[in-house]
Amino acid sequence: MNCIGILTSGGDAPGMNACVRAVVRTAMSHNLQVKAVLQGFDGVMKCAFQELRARDVGGIIQKGGTILQTARSKEFYTPEGQDQGLKNLRYGGIDGLIVIGGDGSMRATMALHQRGLPAVGVPATIDNDIWGTNMAIGVDTALNTIVEAIDKLRDTASSHKRAFLVETMGRRSGYLALMSGVIGGAEMILIPEVDTSLEEVVDTIAQAYARGKTHAIIMVAEGAKHNAAQVAQYLTEHAPNMQTRVTILGHIQRGGQPTAFDRLLAARFGVRAVEALINGEYGAMTALDGREIALVPLSEVTSNERGANLEYYKMARMLAK
Amino acid sequence: MNCIGILTSGGDAPGMNACVRAVVRTAMSHNLQVKAVLQGFDGVMKCAFQELRARDVGGIIQKGGTILQTARSKEFYTPEGQDQGLKNLRYGGIDGLIVIGGDGSMRATMALHQRGLPAVGVPATIDNDIWGTNMAIGVDTALNTIVEAIDKLRDTASSHKRAFLVETMGRRSGYLALMSGVIGGAEMILIPEVDTSLEEVVDTIAQAYARGKTHAIIMVAEGAKHNAAQVAQYLTEHAPNMQTRVTILGHIQRGGQPTAFDRLLAARFGVRAVEALINGEYGAMTALDGREIALVPLSEVTSNERGANLEYYKMARMLAK
Amino acid sequence: MNCIGILTSGGDAPGMNACVRAVVRTAMSHNLQVKAVLQGFDGVMKCAFQELRARDVGGIIQKGGTILQTARSKEFYTPEGQDQGLKNLRYGGIDGLIVIGGDGSMRATMALHQRGLPAVGVPATIDNDIWGTNMAIGVDTALNTIVEAIDKLRDTASSHKRAFLVETMGRRSGYLALMSGVIGGAEMILIPEVDTSLEEVVDTIAQAYARGKTHAIIMVAEGAKHNAAQVAQYLTEHAPNMQTRVTILGHIQRGGQPTAFDRLLAARFGVRAVEALINGEYGAMTALDGREIALVPLSEVTSNERGANLEYYKMARMLAK
Amino acid sequence: MNCIGILTSGGDAPGMNACVRAVVRTAMSHNLQVKAVLQGFDGVMKCAFQELRARDVGGIIQKGGTILQTARSKEFYTPEGQDQGLKNLRYGGIDGLIVIGGDGSMRATMALHQRGLPAVGVPATIDNDIWGTNMAIGVDTALNTIVEAIDKLRDTASSHKRAFLVETMGRRSGYLALMSGVIGGAEMILIPEVDTSLEEVVDTIAQAYARGKTHAIIMVAEGAKHNAAQVAQYLTEHAPNMQTRVTILGHIQRGGQPTAFDRLLAARFGVRAVEALINGEYGAMTALDGREIALVPLSEVTSNERGANLEYYKMARMLAK
Repeated sequence: MNCIGILTSGGDAPGMNACVRAVVRTAMSHNLQVKAVLQGFDGVMKCAFQELRARDVGGIIQKGGTILQTARSKEFYTPEGQDQGLKNLRYGGIDGLIVIGGDGSMRATMALHQRGLPAVGVPATIDNDIWGTNMAIGVDTALNTIVEAIDKLRDTASSHKRAFLVETMGRRSGYLALMSGVIGGAEMILIPEVDTSLEEVVDTIAQAYARGKTHAIIMVAEGAKHNAAQVAQYLTEHAPNMQTRVTILGHIQRGGQPTAFDRLLAARFGVRAVEALINGEYGAMTALDGREIALVPLSEVTSNERGANLEYYKMARMLAK
Repeated sequence: MNCIGILTSGGDAPGMNACVRAVVRTAMSHNLQVKAVLQGFDGVMKCAFQELRARDVGGIIQKGGTILQTARSKEFYTPEGQDQGLKNLRYGGIDGLIVIGGDGSMRATMALHQRGLPAVGVPATIDNDIWGTNMAIGVDTALNTIVEAIDKLRDTASSHKRAFLVETMGRRSGYLALMSGVIGGAEMILIPEVDTSLEEVVDTIAQAYARGKTHAIIMVAEGAKHNAAQVAQYLTEHAPNMQTRVTILGHIQRGGQPTAFDRLLAARFGVRAVEALINGEYGAMTALDGREIALVPLSEVTSNERGANLEYYKMARMLAK
Repeated sequence: MNCIGILTSGGDAPGMNACVRAVVRTAMSHNLQVKAVLQGFDGVMKCAFQELRARDVGGIIQKGGTILQTARSKEFYTPEGQDQGLKNLRYGGIDGLIVIGGDGSMRATMALHQRGLPAVGVPATIDNDIWGTNMAIGVDTALNTIVEAIDKLRDTASSHKRAFLVETMGRRSGYLALMSGVIGGAEMILIPEVDTSLEEVVDTIAQAYARGKTHAIIMVAEGAKHNAAQVAQYLTEHAPNMQTRVTILGHIQRGGQPTAFDRLLAARFGVRAVEALINGEYGAMTALDGREIALVPLSEVTSNERGANLEYYKMARMLAK
Repeated sequence: MNCIGILTSGGDAPGMNACVRAVVRTAMSHNLQVKAVLQGFDGVMKCAFQELRARDVGGIIQKGGTILQTARSKEFYTPEGQDQGLKNLRYGGIDGLIVIGGDGSMRATMALHQRGLPAVGVPATIDNDIWGTNMAIGVDTALNTIVEAIDKLRDTASSHKRAFLVETMGRRSGYLALMSGVIGGAEMILIPEVDTSLEEVVDTIAQAYARGKTHAIIMVAEGAKHNAAQVAQYLTEHAPNMQTRVTILGHIQRGGQPTAFDRLLAARFGVRAVEALINGEYGAMTALDGREIALVPLSEVTSNERGANLEYYKMARMLAK
């Protein structure tokens, strides 16, 4: 192992840069060379390789986004593309690859590993929907962004009787809506994993007012049965005396300076990923297991689904009362 | 003048509490009593009066929302309601009234003034659509909230080729969208005051990409000819190679801890409003005139409309290139 | 168990209020009464008890500090005081007590437990120096506060050749300085657990400049061998060509709205503490064990010392290069 | 005028980058070339010139610090140095110069103007001690940084009886301490412009407690008669029952993402500075005059001193009661 390649892939997540920094600096300390692959697997197809040295990753620790950029590559997602990708990486002198990204990226990493390239994945996605790790890079920052938004609504909510709908990311996973609902003290949480009727929404808000609350905050994952716009329309029609207001956070959840937690997780993942390549622990993903950093086989990561922990759903209901 | 009443009315705005604090403490220093009217003009109708002392406004300077709460009162907006309101205030021992709120609130204040009650208005609304003052309480905080959101999009924008639509408040006024667009470096700004076709939106984004930009941020006032959802739908249909993402900020623009600017403005307005009542300068609104705090007759405030300053529209276009 | 008492004690930590909310709402859901003990163990001595109901803890989830206040009580820290305290709590109808605080508070909780009062501790201290739990309430918020300060220095550092000394809390424990140094990318970290000479400080900064860095950030725990003022004086005398600037964060590290992490930890601890009292699991402290919430006997908590994890010290040095 | 030079000088201030962006983009729109002078007047002496194009200033609007860097140049502050600097700028093809900086930088700009170089100054310094403009770039951001720190102390202050000393920048000017004291609700403000004895500090805090306050926040400008460390020592000796805690903000006041206000001011100053060079309005500084952007002769700027507005000192005392 003389030269490590590193790329970021999929939707970007705050903390990716802190991880890139850790990979480069750790590799330097082991006298390894590092090459950036720009724009994710698209850069693999285009041989967009570039050496990264210690000073190149100075001052990036606190930056959102990714200096390596990401892109979608349709080409790479075919067996032929992956064969060609492998050739390109070897042609570029890359002996081992670290891929920072979401579950699609982990599958792509698995494909390269199966073709014989030493490869290690690092989980990074705000959705926290990757099997095998407690937390992915970016989740903590996204949760804080959402919770700050809820706090601002709470300021204004305290003076008016209103229902606030807050739509978070999460097409298949309700993680962000669920956890920000627990943390932010939401009255109700609508997620893909739980089937909730619009009548229940009206009832829950009415009960909250009956208990003396002056406002109701309802978290809605974008992939819930009814999205925020649909809930708002129903409330306007069926509960005309409630004023309903909608906030759709959108991509601001992917941005911002990474939190302390995400930077530390990114640093630890980065260090461990380099060590894994050096130790020959290939075909694995770094993972937070309790307080330890572990390695989980990519074969397990890509063949299991992570479900929502509905204990938190019950906790949210209890604590909102 | 022995006892001053104070109320907050209309949509809440960060800094209202800092103004309430300043009114109470200034009145105390002149040995005047202060009575809170709770829940805006609704509280006038319901005689919801409550004495406020110096310690009651301790620790509120940094709080969003309003401890006095606001509410809409249909009743008060009739001549009969206003007659009754006047009686209620006098019955409550209130010799003069300070009203913190938006332009509707200024009209209500004017009605009481015309009925003979010494009354002074303080402009507070995030929309900055009140004639006669450079800035209202809450505007600076709202602008910072919007600009922080744009910055977060910019983080993620830098890694993908995308168009981000950000919808701000402003049904009749494009102020927030316009100024946050200048400040945030948006590629395009859609406001009620300027008629922009959907074709122009597509063209502008295409030109931005042609100039080498990797992203485009488009600010949309909720009252623009086409709202964010409509623009997004058009872009999806007519520019399928652009990925469009929508953020609707909604009421988070009304919340948050007030900025330094808003707290200072609120303090100065509060001090001046009490002085106006003491000096017999009734029927006026406090106003920021350059760096000075002035008084503007409510008759002027309520009979003029504030238009957008389209110089900033040109500036935004120039600086985005 | 009909009535649970709750108090906060010691230095306050962001998230204490979120824990109080969780305790009250969880107790309500089990039809238990909750009584606040105001001002910590001082309130135990003064019988400062007050019922808390569900609405009393509305809107406090995001507040720093503690609505129950804390205070130091010399009286309670004697055996006679503890005997009297026990009587007072029983007189107040309190069947079980939840104490939110630092290691001194855990010892006081132990004393009540040994006298026969069902008691459960919840760790809350920004110093993270309590044995038995991965994290205490408040630590994550404090780390984010420190790291935001470092980021601001980094902005200015990038334009000048300067050494910035940042003093954090931590008289006996270097945790905050160490972890914020790893996370913030500091060039050097001075903590009580590692003996560092002033010559080494000069050498490390000189080497950083030699490697091409334009600035150096040095974290200093207040309990380090040399505090920030002493290091600054030495640098001024022995490295006159370096401009040295000092920031002492002080108590701002104890304030601020709690982060998502701290609010979730606080909620989980609060729920678990009530369950522990209900289940008869007395004399224990709630603890974060990996991703699970566990109970640790107070006897272990109070008889062990938590040391710094010097793996992070090495990691910081490696990653800063 | 074909080519404009631009440099940043003196202590950096948030918003400098937003101004650089505005200068470049405005110049482009007038088909002018822009050359950066790196590292302030040191770069003038070293001919460190570099062309800046529209894309070079993309993505810098929200960045603290200055991408052009600043440095102190002893050489330039001699008449011979200034003669040589003029030659260097002409040699570099720079027809007119825009200097963004503090009052020392304005004097240097004046020197070049007197030697015949078309030059315009833009005020940027967090101290707000430049004569002729209501506000300099960076002041609003610094005030918000200080006020956020005060808010965090207030959280913790509410649970303990303590005196918090907060030292701000300002060796000769008390502006930051004074205004943040008004805005943050400080009990006392110590600034160079007002002679305050240590006995008065003790008395004021004692009176605040007597009025029922549970904490006292005292702002101290670094140039006040007694600095924070000295006040703390006196309080410890003469008021042993008060717990005194010190925060020294230091250079974090110079960092951070610029606020909306600072970015707008920076943009307007940048546009106006380029127009001034085009219009032949040389030897002037851009200034905020009420809500308008004006030009003030550098001769006036450099021959007048800006004093503190002690009206705010009285206001702070009144509002803290």
